[in-house]
Amino acid sequence: MIAHRMSKIDSSGIRKVFDLAQKMRNPVNLSIGQPDFDVPEEIKAEAIKAIKDGANKYTVTQGIGELRDGLLKRLRNQRGVNAEDILITSGVSGALTLAFQTLIDPEDEVLIPDPAFVSYKHLANFCSGKPVFIDTYPDFQLTAARIQPCLTKKSKILIMNSPANPTGSMCTSRDTKDIADLAKKHDLLVISDEIYHDFDYHHEFESIGRYYEKTLVLDGFSKSFAATGWRMGYAAGPAHIIREMIKLQQYTFVCAPAPAQYAIAKSLDTDLSKYIASYKKKRDLMYDGLKDNFRIIKPGGAFYFFPQVPWGNDEEFVASAIKNNLLIIPGSVFSERHTHFRISYAASEETINRGIDILNSLTQR
Amino acid sequence: MIAHRMSKIDSSGIRKVFDLAQKMRNPVNLSIGQPDFDVPEEIKAEAIKAIKDGANKYTVTQGIGELRDGLLKRLRNQRGVNAEDILITSGVSGALTLAFQTLIDPEDEVLIPDPAFVSYKHLANFCSGKPVFIDTYPDFQLTAARIQPCLTKKSKILIMNSPANPTGSMCTSRDTKDIADLAKKHDLLVISDEIYHDFDYHHEFESIGRYYEKTLVLDGFSKSFAATGWRMGYAAGPAHIIREMIKLQQYTFVCAPAPAQYAIAKSLDTDLSKYIASYKKKRDLMYDGLKDNFRIIKPGGAFYFFPQVPWGNDEEFVASAIKNNLLIIPGSVFSERHTHFRISYAASEETINRGIDILNSLTQR
Repeated sequence: MIAHRMSKIDSSGIRKVFDLAQKMRNPVNLSIGQPDFDVPEEIKAEAIKAIKDGANKYTVTQGIGELRDGLLKRLRNQRGVNAEDILITSGVSGALTLAFQTLIDPEDEVLIPDPAFVSYKHLANFCSGKPVFIDTYPDFQLTAARIQPCLTKKSKILIMNSPANPTGSMCTSRDTKDIADLAKKHDLLVISDEIYHDFDYHHEFESIGRYYEKTLVLDGFSKSFAATGWRMGYAAGPAHIIREMIKLQQYTFVCAPAPAQYAIAKSLDTDLSKYIASYKKKRDLMYDGLKDNFRIIKPGGAFYFFPQVPWGNDEEFVASAIKNNLLIIPGSVFSERHTHFRISYAASEETINRGIDILNSLTQR
Repeated sequence: MIAHRMSKIDSSGIRKVFDLAQKMRNPVNLSIGQPDFDVPEEIKAEAIKAIKDGANKYTVTQGIGELRDGLLKRLRNQRGVNAEDILITSGVSGALTLAFQTLIDPEDEVLIPDPAFVSYKHLANFCSGKPVFIDTYPDFQLTAARIQPCLTKKSKILIMNSPANPTGSMCTSRDTKDIADLAKKHDLLVISDEIYHDFDYHHEFESIGRYYEKTLVLDGFSKSFAATGWRMGYAAGPAHIIREMIKLQQYTFVCAPAPAQYAIAKSLDTDLSKYIASYKKKRDLMYDGLKDNFRIIKPGGAFYFFPQVPWGNDEEFVASAIKNNLLIIPGSVFSERHTHFRISYAASEETINRGIDILNSLTQR
C-alpha cells in the first residue's frame, strides 16, 4: 500500500529523541532548533492587522509582489545577489522540497556537507537522488579542497549552509569564492540555505550567490523573526528554475500563508540587533563553560555547538545526558559519524548554565 | 537541469486563464474558487489571540492535540467516520500532496472522476501514477456502475469529491454505499476530498468513510471559514497511512501554520448557517437566470455550475466571454472534454446578475 519511495526516508534518529523527550518532565532543553524569544511585537502587530484587514485569502502562487520585490532588492543591496526571480514558500523546508523535486532526476548526485541539516539527505534520497557527503570534520569548514574529491560526472547540486546547522560554522570569504569557482568549472547548481544569516556574530556572512549566478538562495523568517510556526521562506535564483518551482507549488503548497506574507512584507527593516547581541553573549557563555572539558569549536554563527562526545558513541552519551535530565541531540542525526552531539543555545541563560553543569558532570562515563 | 518528472505536470490550461485575467480590468469575475465573504470575526479574533499569546512556533508535525482530537470527534459524531488517526496539513492540497507521494508507486492507477479538481490528475502524474478517468457526463454523478468498467488489477486509489468542484454535484446515499461495496470488493483506497461538505444545500452529504474504513478523508477550513490563505486542512484515516504522511511532512511542510491551528481548534463549533443560506440563494439566482438558455444541472453543493457551452468549444466560448469582460473557466481545465465551462457563484449578487446577463447575451456565436 505504501509507495516504495517512502522507504528512502528515515526519521528514526530524530524520532527516537522526540520519544525520549516526551518522557522527560521539564528537561533542561538544549535541543531546540528555534529562537527562545517570541516574534517581535511590531511584526505580530502587522500580522494582526493583515488578518483584521481580510488578507486571509489565497495569494498568487509565487507570493505577493510587495514581498517579492522587497526581498529581491534586499538580496541585491545587502548580499550582492542579483537573483533573476523569486518565489515565496512555506518555510525553507518548503523551498527545499520544491527545489529538490523540481531538479533531481534519478542518480543525480547531491553534494552535502557532513554534518548537515537532516532534511538534505532524506529529501535527496526521496527524490531518487544520491547524496554524496563532503567530510568537514574536525573543523566543519566547507572548502573547495574538500569538495573536489567528491565530484563526479553525475554531480549536479551542491548544498551550502552558512551559518550552519548543526555546527554554527561559517564559510570564509576566501572559501566561498573558491567554491564558486569550482562550482562554475563543474557547472553545479548551488543551493545556498541562508536561514541563519542574521545570526552572524562577527559580520562574516557572504552569500555564494554574490559570486556565482547559478545559485538558488533559500532563506526565510523562521529563525530571524522567531516565527517558525508561520511557515515563511523564499527561494531566489535563476528564472527557469523558479518558474518550475512555481508550477509545482501551484499543485502542492498552493501559496505560502497569506497573513504572514503581508506581515513580513511590512517588517523587512525590523532591527534585530538586540536579539543577535543576546545570542552572541549566550554563545560565549556556553563556550566558556564547556571549552575546558570538551573538544569544541567556537563558531561564528547560528545558535549551535557540535562538540565531540567525551566517551562512547553519540547515542550512548546522549542517553546518559537524558538520564540526567538534559536534552541534546546525537550527532548521527546530522552525520554519517557517531562521534559528536548538538547543543543549541537558543535557551535562557539559566537553562544554559544548568546544561553546562550537567555536561561537565558527564565527562567521565 | 529540470527533472524529468516536471514534464508530467502541466499548468498551461489554468495559466492561460490567469494570463487573460491579468489583462482584464475589473472583470465580472465568476471564476473564483473561494467564498466571497471574509473569515468570520470570531475566528479572526482567535487567530489574533494566538499570535498575541505567542503561538508562533513550530507545532509537532502531526498538529496540535486539541485540534486533532476535536476533528476526530466531529468526524465520528457528524459523519459517522471512525478514523484511526489524523494529521493536520497545509490545506487539502497539502494533504493530497502527502497522500499521493506516500501512496502512489509507478503505474499505480488512480481513478478520477471526469470532470474533477485539476490537481488530482497532475499530482497523480507527477507521482508516476496513471490517472484513469471515470466519465460522469452528462449528469456528473459518480456511481459504482460508472466506476466498474474502469477497474483493472492496477487500480489502487479512487478519488471522491462530494460536493464536487467543478460541478457542485453530490454523491447520493445509495451511490455512496454502492461505491463503498465496490471499493471493498476491489480493495481500493478511497481518498474522499470533503472540502466543500459545509456547502450542502439539502443536507445530502455523506462521507464514504462511514461505510468503508479504507478511506482517507481530506478536509479543511479554506472554504467553510473562507480562510484559503491560512493553509489549513487535515487527512484522517488508516493509521499506517497517516503515520507515513507524518514522516513525509516532517521533511517537507514541517507543520501546518501554528496560529491558524490554535485559532481553528477554538472555532470548530462556529455557526455557518447564514453563509450557507446566502450561497443557496445565490445558487438559485444563478440557476434561474441561466436555465432557459443553457444546458445546466442544478447541483446540491459547493458553489459551482458546469454548463455546456452553447456553441464552439470551451476555449472559444470562454474567449468570447472574456472579450465581454466576464471571467469564467474553460471546462477542459478540469476535464478531458472541451464542451463545458465552470461558473462560480462565490460572488456578490450584483456580480452574479451581471454575469447572467453577459452569458445570456452570448448564446449565439
